[in-house]
Amino acid sequence: MELIQHNRCFDGEQRIYAFNSKVLKGEAKFGIFLPPQALTGQACPALFYLAGLTCTEETFAIKAHAQRLAAQLGLILISPDTSPRGEHVAQGDSWDIGQGAGFYINATQAPWAEHYQMESFMADELYDLVIQNFPVQADAMGIFGHSMGGHGALTLALKYPEKFKSVSAFAPICAPSQCPWGEKAFSNYFGEDRNEWLKHDATALIQEKGALFTEILIDQGSKDQFYAQLNPALFKQACSQVGQSLTLREHEGYDHGYYFIQSFIDDHLQFHAVQLEA
Amino acid sequence: MELIQHNRCFDGEQRIYAFNSKVLKGEAKFGIFLPPQALTGQACPALFYLAGLTCTEETFAIKAHAQRLAAQLGLILISPDTSPRGEHVAQGDSWDIGQGAGFYINATQAPWAEHYQMESFMADELYDLVIQNFPVQADAMGIFGHSMGGHGALTLALKYPEKFKSVSAFAPICAPSQCPWGEKAFSNYFGEDRNEWLKHDATALIQEKGALFTEILIDQGSKDQFYAQLNPALFKQACSQVGQSLTLREHEGYDHGYYFIQSFIDDHLQFHAVQLEA
Repeated sequence: MELIQHNRCFDGEQRIYAFNSKVLKGEAKFGIFLPPQALTGQACPALFYLAGLTCTEETFAIKAHAQRLAAQLGLILISPDTSPRGEHVAQGDSWDIGQGAGFYINATQAPWAEHYQMESFMADELYDLVIQNFPVQADAMGIFGHSMGGHGALTLALKYPEKFKSVSAFAPICAPSQCPWGEKAFSNYFGEDRNEWLKHDATALIQEKGALFTEILIDQGSKDQFYAQLNPALFKQACSQVGQSLTLREHEGYDHGYYFIQSFIDDHLQFHAVQLEA
Repeated sequence: MELIQHNRCFDGEQRIYAFNSKVLKGEAKFGIFLPPQALTGQACPALFYLAGLTCTEETFAIKAHAQRLAAQLGLILISPDTSPRGEHVAQGDSWDIGQGAGFYINATQAPWAEHYQMESFMADELYDLVIQNFPVQADAMGIFGHSMGGHGALTLALKYPEKFKSVSAFAPICAPSQCPWGEKAFSNYFGEDRNEWLKHDATALIQEKGALFTEILIDQGSKDQFYAQLNPALFKQACSQVGQSLTLREHEGYDHGYYFIQSFIDDHLQFHAVQLEA
């Protein structure tokens, strides 16, 4: 594991690491914010943040404005890259498939299956690496994300509730089986069997798994330019059917970008801090 | 004036405008954050933020994390680009001269004098345009900036104290006549007469003008990779000589970048809010 950038920030430290991922078969990078409490060795709750299409391990650290409150709350924040990378890794034909668009699943189809194993990367390899190398409270780790990363956060939490104890999302792709982004990604990564898709679709998963969390928090902008890709109403209906408590807030005038995220990031950090301490 | 981007942010709005600048003889862009109070037409104090080398009108809006507190305090934030731009504008031979490196002065030498008139742009054209088009309290406008923009903020405030009622800076170039960045820029923009340089050097200016402000605030990181370019001690000594009250804080472990700025941005907004209300 190589430390490739580190910057003092709110008396903590924002870092970027690179390491050789066995799961992704190549170099993987992730950002991590260590609050001052962690720098003195105190075990802290930890939150994984999954970014959206085209983003990298730096996007969250620069744009989400999370470090101020994370330093106060003593939260470690981990932000992985959004896909495998490199010349040896399959490229997509556009920004919504391939590099920068890993969808946090394990692909089964060529040419993707060789490297696109982001589910195992997140839930096993990076998860374990964080526990082994940083002062995290291993029983107090949560997950959140944005857009494609909101889909990632919801589905990974529903698949691995023993690993991710709290979950929230900004403008998540709630039903990828039923929107163009998801249909393109899933048909590439999984093939045409739609039953397979449903194992990686938050709306279908919550119907299968039932209520697993005390509460789920989702924020959505009313002027989101990608609203038709997101389907929060389908996820809300599914939560209602299985009795999963959901706070779904629609914010008037907000769009899909990081000016929206930064406006509500503090609410998410507070939400996770409460859930992870419970 | 054309609105080219606008995003809801903390119940206010982050915008980018472009307009045809007579002073710069070409298109100029600036960012502006309007807090919720301004959106309802209430006159607000306003703060100009001048960015450093290589930055644009977007850098501050994305990286400085200022909107949260500005929305609470009801502060308008204006962030101009750092130089004239375009194919018709002289290019420098590297990142520390020419486009992206305007130094907030009026150049007198060819090929720079034709477009590099950032002092008049800031103190006259943009300043007036902001007053005419946004609900600012014209008697409550301040200025701050970073690095080259810290130099810009200090020198413009000392030249135009009737326009800029409060001033602060992050890691400013305090004595450009005495550091490589400044020597390169000033010899290009003003020629080799060092007496001319001193009119645009914060340390020389404060000695000439005397104490003009109730207080000046400067934050500096102890691990700033450009420390040798900045000379805060020279500015401190000059302030002391003329009785200008200065709060110069050196922060252990912080470097020159925006992780440093975001860690102390709230203190600067609070500082200006108090100064501008006085």
